[in-house]
This record gives sequence, C-alpha cells and structure tokens, in this order.
Amino acid sequence: MTDTTHTRAAAAHLGGAVRRTELGCGLRVVTEDVPGSHTFSVGFFVRVGSRHETEHLHGASHFLEHVLFKGTRRRAAEEISAAIEQVGGDINAYTAREHTCFYARVLAEDAELACEVLVDMLTGSLVRSEDVEAEREVILEEIAMHADEPAEVASDLVAARLFDGHPLGRPVIGSPGSIRALTRDQVVSFWRRHYRPSSLVVAASGRVDHDALVEWLRPLDEVSQPHRARRTAAPPRAHRPGVSVLRRPTEQCTVSVAFPGFGVFDDRRYPLGVLGTVLGGGMSSRLFVEVRERRGLTYAIDAGELTYSDAGVFTIEFQSTPDRVDQILSLVRDQLAEVVAHGVTDDELARAKGQLRGQTVLAYESPAARMSRLGGSELSGDTRTLADLLAGYDAVDGEDVRAVAREVLAEPPFVAVVGPAVQRRRLERLVQGWVQHVHPGKEQS
Amino acid sequence: MTDTTHTRAAAAHLGGAVRRTELGCGLRVVTEDVPGSHTFSVGFFVRVGSRHETEHLHGASHFLEHVLFKGTRRRAAEEISAAIEQVGGDINAYTAREHTCFYARVLAEDAELACEVLVDMLTGSLVRSEDVEAEREVILEEIAMHADEPAEVASDLVAARLFDGHPLGRPVIGSPGSIRALTRDQVVSFWRRHYRPSSLVVAASGRVDHDALVEWLRPLDEVSQPHRARRTAAPPRAHRPGVSVLRRPTEQCTVSVAFPGFGVFDDRRYPLGVLGTVLGGGMSSRLFVEVRERRGLTYAIDAGELTYSDAGVFTIEFQSTPDRVDQILSLVRDQLAEVVAHGVTDDELARAKGQLRGQTVLAYESPAARMSRLGGSELSGDTRTLADLLAGYDAVDGEDVRAVAREVLAEPPFVAVVGPAVQRRRLERLVQGWVQHVHPGKEQS
Repeated sequence: MTDTTHTRAAAAHLGGAVRRTELGCGLRVVTEDVPGSHTFSVGFFVRVGSRHETEHLHGASHFLEHVLFKGTRRRAAEEISAAIEQVGGDINAYTAREHTCFYARVLAEDAELACEVLVDMLTGSLVRSEDVEAEREVILEEIAMHADEPAEVASDLVAARLFDGHPLGRPVIGSPGSIRALTRDQVVSFWRRHYRPSSLVVAASGRVDHDALVEWLRPLDEVSQPHRARRTAAPPRAHRPGVSVLRRPTEQCTVSVAFPGFGVFDDRRYPLGVLGTVLGGGMSSRLFVEVRERRGLTYAIDAGELTYSDAGVFTIEFQSTPDRVDQILSLVRDQLAEVVAHGVTDDELARAKGQLRGQTVLAYESPAARMSRLGGSELSGDTRTLADLLAGYDAVDGEDVRAVAREVLAEPPFVAVVGPAVQRRRLERLVQGWVQHVHPGKEQS
Repeated sequence: MTDTTHTRAAAAHLGGAVRRTELGCGLRVVTEDVPGSHTFSVGFFVRVGSRHETEHLHGASHFLEHVLFKGTRRRAAEEISAAIEQVGGDINAYTAREHTCFYARVLAEDAELACEVLVDMLTGSLVRSEDVEAEREVILEEIAMHADEPAEVASDLVAARLFDGHPLGRPVIGSPGSIRALTRDQVVSFWRRHYRPSSLVVAASGRVDHDALVEWLRPLDEVSQPHRARRTAAPPRAHRPGVSVLRRPTEQCTVSVAFPGFGVFDDRRYPLGVLGTVLGGGMSSRLFVEVRERRGLTYAIDAGELTYSDAGVFTIEFQSTPDRVDQILSLVRDQLAEVVAHGVTDDELARAKGQLRGQTVLAYESPAARMSRLGGSELSGDTRTLADLLAGYDAVDGEDVRAVAREVLAEPPFVAVVGPAVQRRRLERLVQGWVQHVHPGKEQS
C-alpha cells in the first residue's frame, strides 16, 4: 500500500496558503486564496449557539440570527438581501449548537460589498419590536416545518436522550413555548453579550485578498473591548440505552440507532471515521450491501457522526415500512457483532482510507465548503489542516478500528423510531440482549 | 445600465471550450475542460424517462435504472460501487420524465475507471431475476418514502392535473401496482429498446481529455445499429384550474399554485425567468417580502419553473400552518394582479438580470453542475451556451415581462394543497374570481 504517497498527492489538491490575522479587539480573520477561482465565499462565525443558552433563553441564538436580517440603520430587510441578490450572490445564516454563522457567496468583484453588508447586520441592526413580532411568527412556522420532518424529529430525540438535562440536548430552534416567551430585551441583551470581536472568526475562501479583507473588517475593531468567552459545562457521560417511539401517521418509520461518540479533539475520531465508512459509508458499505442490496429491505441506510467540542454521537440511520424495522435492527446488530468480533479486513481498511481521502478532496472542491471548514475549525480552536486530517486517517490500522468498534458499538444503543406502530417489544429485546450478542463476555452496564 | 458588458464579463467566467464528437453509432460525446480543476465529472444521459412509457410499463425507466446497479458479467453490485467509492468518488443515477442519467464524480486520475464502470453497467448488466425481485422491494420502499414528502406529493398532484391523461402527468417512480406488475422480461426489453447509442449522450467536465474519453467509449460503438428515437405525443393544452386538497396529518400545509408555462425552446422563457425572479427568487423578491418579511406568515415561499421539451409549469410554492393558507393565497393573488397591471420597475428589472447573471456563474462553479447542463442540453437538442442564455435574459425589457405576466398569471391556477384541513371554499372562491381580480376585462375561459 502506498497510502502516504496518495495522501501527499491528495493534500496537494487541497492547496491554497492559509493566512491568519488577529485584530487588536480579538477578532480573528482566516483566509485561503484558491488559484483560478472567480468567486468569493465569506462567513462570520460567532461562538454562540443553543449550548450557550439557559433554559429560559432556549432558542435565543436562532431567534437573534433571524432578527439580524430585519434591517439596520442603513438598510431595510429587503435591502440587505437585495444588495447581495442583485449581483447574483446569496446571503444566509444558520445556527448550530456551538456556533452561529452568517455567510455570503458572490463573484470575486463583489467581495467588499458582501463584507460591508454582513458587518452592517452584525453591528448596526435595529431589532425593532415589530420585526421581533413578525419573526416570532416565522420561527413558529419553522418549528411546525421541523416537526413534519421525521429525520429532524429522530435527531432531536437522540440529542434529548444522550445529553439529557444539558443544553446540547435541546433543539437549536427552541420550543413553541420558549419562542413565545422571549422578549425583545432578552434578544438584544443576548446579542450584546455574545457578539464580541473575541468570539468572532471571519473566514473566506475563493479569490481572496487577505489584506483588503482585514481592512474591510476594521469597523468591528472599534466595537468593543476584548472579552473572554465563558466555558459551558461538559455534557453528561451517563448513557441510557433503550427504545423511544414517537408515533406519526407516515408510511415509513425513520430510525436512528445512537451510541455515544467522541468530541472533535479526540483522536479516536480517526478509527471511528474509518469504521463508519466500512459500515455505512456509501453503496459498497456492509450495512448497505446486507440490508438493501441483498435483501431489498430499505431504500436508504447509512452511518455517521455528530461532533461537538467535547462530545459526539455515532448513529446508524434507516427508513423502512414499519413491519421491517425489527428485522433491519436485528441485521444491524449482527453486522456490529461481526465487526466487534473480527474487525475489518485489510482490503476494507485500504478502501475506506481511499474513500475518505478522495471524498475530502471532492468535498472541498468548492470555496464555500473550504470557507466553512476554515471558519468552524478556527472558532473551535482546531488547528488541523485537511492534510493533517488525511494523515490521521492514513495512520489508522486494523487494531485501532477493532478497538474503537468494541468501545463504541458494544454498548447497547438508544434507538429512536418516528413513524407508525412498530413491534416495540422486539426492538426492546434486541437492545436488552445487545452486549451478550455483540460482545459476549462483556458485562452490560 | 451596462448589462452587456457585465454579461461579457460573466460569460468569460463560464469559459472552458466545449468539444463535441459523434461516433459512427450515433453516440454523442460532449466535454468541457475546466482549467485548474482536479476532478472529473461524467454523465451518461439516455433519452428515456417516464414520458416514454406506456401505461402498463409505468415506472420501467426508473426500475431499469435501479437494476443496472445490481451487477454485470464482470462485477457484483457491491463491486460496482466499491470500484468508485474506494477512490473517494461517487456514482449514482436518477430518472426524470424525459431522460435517465448515470453519473460519477472522481479525482481526475480516476477518469478512465469511472467511464469503464459506467460502460460496463450500461452494456454488461446481468439483470438476474433475484436482483429484480430485491430491487422491486427497494422501489416500493422508495415509493413509501416519496409519499411521506409533501412537496413531492404536491408536485405529483400538479403534474397529474396539468398533464392529465399524458405520460408527463404520471410520477416517474411508478405506482405500487405498476411496480408489482413489471416483469424481468419487460424491464430487459425496455433496456434493449431504449438504450441505443443514438439515444445516448456522454458529457464530462472538470479536468477532461476529450480524445481519451472518446477512446474509452469505443465499446459502445460496437453495441448496436443507429436507431431513430420515436417522438412522443405532445402534452394536452387544456388547462383545468381549481383546488385539490390531499389530507395529511402534518403540522403544515404544503401548497403549490400552478400555471401552464413554456417548453425549453420557447423564447418566452426569458421574460418568464425574469418574472419568476422578481416575484419569488430569493429574500428580496416581492412574495418573500410581502408574505414573510412584512407579515411573518410563512418560513418559505418561492417561485419556479419545471421545463420539458415541449411544455412547462410555472409554480409558486409555500408552506404554512393550515389557518393561514387562504390569507397567503389571497396575498399571492394581489401580488400577481399588481405585476399584471403595472409590470416591474426598471430597478427590479436590472436587479433580476444581475441576479440571473451572477447566479448562473455561481451555479456553474462546479464541474458536476457544468457536466449536468452540458449533457442535458445536448440530449434535448438545445445548443445554447450559458453565454447565450445570459444574453437572452439581458435582452428582456419591461414590456416583455408584463406581456408574459398577462399571459401566464392571468389564467386561474390549479392549487394543490397537501396537509391538514383548510378553508377549501375560500380557496375555491379565490381561484374562481382570479381573472376578474388579476386581469379585469379579460374573460375567464
């Protein structure tokens, strides 16, 4: 195997020199100029998300993200979007558990405009009462939309169980009750408290002039004093396996089989990434071949990770008509037992590494994807480059994968089912007998 | 305004010389080498889709697309996907109403491999009985999944009404009954009949060696004799406005307001594209500003087109809780009346053109998107380049937009609602009074 050589070749495709600048106020600017690009992608990453909310402020990060689009001293709401859309760009934002990101993608010649609009929103928004009220209604509609998406609902059930009692366990969007209760004053003071230059990273990729970008961000330098972000409590470690069924009158059930995983800085992520690829990464993966290709029981089955700064979740997800759920869960359990007992073959290991390597190059083909990784990593303090990540995967051996399989998959999972009635007892029995089946000799805790 | 200059600058970003070759068998190869790209995207476009199916073969194109992944004389199903996935690429396919596309995206050094695997699938598949049976179950699961997606269901309702009695009116995926009834022999003879070199276009973008690609495709040159594709009947022109409500126990209603539009070769597409952008293209559009920004009645509202070779549909789509549907439809009707009466402002016209221009450049940043357009256009006989499209939009004036608004929007729409109970009578009254409200003086047909 010549993994290292391939990795070097792959790393060469990931090129573009990264430049970093920290302004006096603590704001960090990180950019990468992609040769040949005609476009400019920029993101303003703020270190605040639902994790940083107390219970009575649940949903405030996302609410605030919405109201910052509602108009500034210089621009009405429709002028914010028109400024970017009339040059063919897009501007949007999202809120996650650990950060909020406002971003725009434009032709390279409109880079300054994009930055000026985003700075204006983050510093000059009016947050008028009537805008807060209109946006409250929009968010209640968004919550209803979210409730109609079974994959979102299953993911919320998993978070609620694995991070029970911790802010990571709450949906980012808030609840109808918390959204109805939030006041304009609470949203404004949340903004003042969390949107500090020292909690902000601006990342850009594409055709980027780093020095010019730093100049365009000077208005932020004058906004406020450095401020140290408070640490939030670590999430609970206690895992409560079991089965939770949320009845919905759909045709299919959406099922998430969830195990505690690892945080972003934990090196066990590398073998877990390889394991997830072998089990559920694409159409040649073990689960896809066994459940769909050989038996035709489902249209979609895959494995993946959710990763936070100090915690993670490893899930296997599938959809099927209700009478097949227990058969599929049983097949999943058999496949996990197999990998815990015998690990992966050398051939699978090589294929998974090749897959992770090529996927990384293809995924970071677009400046927007590169910007997103650059900003997210910088904000979380993760200094690894894409080449470092590839080297991490390449260093994984078969024993690492088997060890992480034993560690993660031999614990009984929490199984969330959203959909019509299933054979719940059978699912519970599969979970109860998990350790005995998957890792005989280990004691079920 | 300096539209033309901007368009030339935009067109320069769309570069890459296109090369075409037609093999003796009628297969067309069309490629574009993108300078600086490290990746290779290739698609095999076959001129067959649900439109080419008789009623008792409903769903055959899509069924066939699935079974061609199930193994060839050289490779088992999992070896097909593994060949591409182990180098980090992806391989997949989709079936539409007028064509089927098999595609792969890989690092440039794996281009030959990707083509060899796709040629093998299209010519050397075994289509074994047991694979047909397993895949029949997968497609029944896919139909169930589809039925759980309100936007898909609404789109099917619209097609069924606007193309009533014509194959364009049927869902691509088939029905549970038609899928259960299809036999292996029917699927195989469908394959033999429709997968002819003269009905096939191979398109590639990224880092592409055109001459090498043509060589890799030689095996297809020997497969069969040229064959002239049969024309299918034109879809019906009679429009039946009205309201159709499909009850689903969801939180929100998904609503599609549909008008007959234009086929891909109809030059009225240019002013209709500008009109759609002004009405529902993004956050600065009239509908977004009126319905969401000012009143907070929805999370999402937009306008768009579905375009076939000789027909099209123009839709306005939104989601909201059920008690807001009639209020939103009334606001939509007011907005359409306004644009029919007064057209768009010069400022809006300039903004929409800028938006279409920049969006085109940004959308075709990725080789996969370029390949997709290249192959689809070649297959349908559309020889316009992206620069031609931009020039078409730039030539639109305010009177063109107003004329097309009068033509398309002053007819009463067909309104499809999927979700919980709504004030159906009120919706029907809004549709009944459409012409009188939107275009007084015109007679409702």
